[in-house]
Amino acid sequence: MSSSNGLVCFTNCLLPQEDGGLVKKDLWIDERRGVILDAQLTFFERRERPDRIIDLKGHILSPGLIDIQINGAYGFDFSVYDGDDAAYKEGMKLVAEKIVETGVTSLVPTIITQEKSLYPKILNLLRPFSTPTSASLLGWHAEGPFIDMAKRGAHAPPYLLSAPDGFFSFESAYGAQNLVDSEDWLMSTDGQCGVRIVTAAPEIRGVMGAVNELSKRGIVFSIGHSVASSDIATQAVMQGARLITHLFNAMPQLHHRDPSIIGLLGASPHVSGLNSADIFPTSPLATAAMSGISSEAFEYRSSPGTPTKPVMSRVGSRSELHLDKGQVADMPFDRPYYDMIVDGIHSHPNSVRLAYSAFPDGCILITDAMKILDPNLRDGIHEWRDGKRFVKEGYKLYLEGTDTLAGSVVTLDSCVRNFSRFTGCSLGEAIKCATFNPAKCLGIENTKGTLRSGADADLVVLDRQGNVVSTWVKGRQVWGSTA
Amino acid sequence: MSSSNGLVCFTNCLLPQEDGGLVKKDLWIDERRGVILDAQLTFFERRERPDRIIDLKGHILSPGLIDIQINGAYGFDFSVYDGDDAAYKEGMKLVAEKIVETGVTSLVPTIITQEKSLYPKILNLLRPFSTPTSASLLGWHAEGPFIDMAKRGAHAPPYLLSAPDGFFSFESAYGAQNLVDSEDWLMSTDGQCGVRIVTAAPEIRGVMGAVNELSKRGIVFSIGHSVASSDIATQAVMQGARLITHLFNAMPQLHHRDPSIIGLLGASPHVSGLNSADIFPTSPLATAAMSGISSEAFEYRSSPGTPTKPVMSRVGSRSELHLDKGQVADMPFDRPYYDMIVDGIHSHPNSVRLAYSAFPDGCILITDAMKILDPNLRDGIHEWRDGKRFVKEGYKLYLEGTDTLAGSVVTLDSCVRNFSRFTGCSLGEAIKCATFNPAKCLGIENTKGTLRSGADADLVVLDRQGNVVSTWVKGRQVWGSTA
Repeated sequence: MSSSNGLVCFTNCLLPQEDGGLVKKDLWIDERRGVILDAQLTFFERRERPDRIIDLKGHILSPGLIDIQINGAYGFDFSVYDGDDAAYKEGMKLVAEKIVETGVTSLVPTIITQEKSLYPKILNLLRPFSTPTSASLLGWHAEGPFIDMAKRGAHAPPYLLSAPDGFFSFESAYGAQNLVDSEDWLMSTDGQCGVRIVTAAPEIRGVMGAVNELSKRGIVFSIGHSVASSDIATQAVMQGARLITHLFNAMPQLHHRDPSIIGLLGASPHVSGLNSADIFPTSPLATAAMSGISSEAFEYRSSPGTPTKPVMSRVGSRSELHLDKGQVADMPFDRPYYDMIVDGIHSHPNSVRLAYSAFPDGCILITDAMKILDPNLRDGIHEWRDGKRFVKEGYKLYLEGTDTLAGSVVTLDSCVRNFSRFTGCSLGEAIKCATFNPAKCLGIENTKGTLRSGADADLVVLDRQGNVVSTWVKGRQVWGSTA
Repeated sequence: MSSSNGLVCFTNCLLPQEDGGLVKKDLWIDERRGVILDAQLTFFERRERPDRIIDLKGHILSPGLIDIQINGAYGFDFSVYDGDDAAYKEGMKLVAEKIVETGVTSLVPTIITQEKSLYPKILNLLRPFSTPTSASLLGWHAEGPFIDMAKRGAHAPPYLLSAPDGFFSFESAYGAQNLVDSEDWLMSTDGQCGVRIVTAAPEIRGVMGAVNELSKRGIVFSIGHSVASSDIATQAVMQGARLITHLFNAMPQLHHRDPSIIGLLGASPHVSGLNSADIFPTSPLATAAMSGISSEAFEYRSSPGTPTKPVMSRVGSRSELHLDKGQVADMPFDRPYYDMIVDGIHSHPNSVRLAYSAFPDGCILITDAMKILDPNLRDGIHEWRDGKRFVKEGYKLYLEGTDTLAGSVVTLDSCVRNFSRFTGCSLGEAIKCATFNPAKCLGIENTKGTLRSGADADLVVLDRQGNVVSTWVKGRQVWGSTA
């Protein structure tokens, strides 16, 4: 009776929820507009019928995975530009079109420290980009040059910079046009300014002074390649930093008396701006805070990093004055998100679980993959850039002649599976760390990384073991397993 | 009408629950028998009326605090024995009677490394002990001599031992009569064998082989003063270790690729007995585990350290197959309890919160207090033992001429208040870490550390700021604040 309406209903599937659950439920999309629909509205109220019903045989239908740190793949390195714009764009397209086989439908190409003159050229090219059959490049993530020499990893020492002029030093490095203040760029996926994330060390001269301005422009300031003390790391978060780059790697170990950047996962409500010496029971602040804790109950909003003030919803004053488990007092700031390379090499499974247990809602999975990421690549020595070479041994990737880990060759779908095994969490909770959490960190959760109505119908079908069965972009299948 | 029945009803108070909540509720005790009563049974069914009703004016009525690591107080050092049994017993009595002002009603006196011949003498004296107005000494906690030279802290190097004969070396050191296998000693509070806890380093020769036998005898094996790798620490837990001594102190920092003892707080379900190299997605074990995770949902019993096999309660198979947040897969072993000195010095507040967030149910507060613990003691140099001296600066206590922390001078009630501020948890949750959790670790939660009916009426009244108002032992008030 009805003519073709472009409606597709996925059925017999498990949908990952934003709380990490998996629920058996149908999903409706509009394949013409490429968006997810409100099933209630579409089916029950408008009484529309789908053109197609797709039986997913009990598989998981997840939002497409989002990788916010990836250096390259399939032989192309986002950080290598040899003057040929067309060749660079071809490389972007190659990665975007091939990466969907790993379940990734959005990525933030990451540029490691460059010779300064190259930044504006590369970043001008790294505008948001996609083709009808590709993942979306969401913009760029600049890792460096404002990082600490002591934690430079594979970054080239001669190119590291301080930021004596604060935010202007960042403009000078990346090009002012690449840091423009835009209301809309967060949602932009076509051609506009594409800055998403800057990884820098807040202890480097002038960097702390730039955090607030970067954050106000909607840019995610991520603490990384840094030896920041607890005080400095805390101050950076108070200035607006909302992410930690590859937690555990390229930062100090957790020292119990100065837990530094890792310690932010346990950021104490009474540390920000204070020294330990100030927090003894006799201090007036402490006493005031204790009164607050004991006489009233507040709920701390657990989602991290939102730059606005913490919401303090009062939940006390019940008839029984039942102070529930989990109700805690005022937080001076939200704990930042943190991303991890869960390949079993960059961090021990116990470290991964420790971090995740301490702060599950802040956890983001990344690959930090290098250009040699490609499921079928042989072990051995591979060319990189600046005449340097990698040694690949299984999942391990070293700078030749060193024991310095240089990114990874793990795929994001593997990370999801590893993460579930390492932490003992459900597959739904692991999926959340590669979809909802990174989307929330970037502020794009209405468009990407969720199954909200109106969001892009970028989807990945996973079997119950977390293996990719098929990948969908804007409502169209772009990849399918032949297994 | 009724004659005196010894029943006391505390009213207008908040009772700490075993889940960390605080609930407004009455508590009934029998002051003659010194035990807590079932209010339902006593009041509603038997319709008994109390001799006394005590209005606590809204204060918190908590189980008395339990300190499982305390070296001494009020000038007496449990580790100093000069041949005079009567003087030693007088010291025990002094500490037991005075410590109640800090809200502590049970403690496990801790003996640091001794010259070998002294152990049997001291341990014979350290039988469970109490007076009608004192806290209960529950037995002994031997910290050393089987510890690692590299993490000896203030322990005397010449007295450290290895355990070439495994459990027999422990018997040889402590005296066989002090390690007797007894069904009943766990509940004993009068005169019987008093071994409770042994802190040792599992990497020391012969120690690992003794863990299982110690555990089978109901002795808590605690990992401490150790440089155990992740593998060794994991193995110790699999052998029965159920506690970590003063987490963060006298152990390696958390290294992300070998997180060692601290990493046990995040013990990954798939690490025990395996190297990282074995846990890649391709391994058959991993694949099998993944199937388990995805096809069924299990609930992991969150309480740590019980030596029996983990309970695997199946919670899947709901109509919706809704895999809830928090449901995780099989755990090869329970994570151990861990104790912390929360004085703001031994560990940074962020470290404290990180540990607690990662594993709240395993957290135990201790003082590790030295003999100079006494609220009114002046700063400066104090005599210790073996001709050594302390320097006290506020809460800080160093071995003279070093920067080695030597225990603390913090009281357990202060630790509870600090902990609530450092972690942002409620006072009820902090109280749990000084009552229910240590009792559970020792296996005495039916007698101490809870408000279960039949438990000893050892109680502490705290105001809403966590200050001690009064302390009760076996149903009688033994201390009251004059404030």
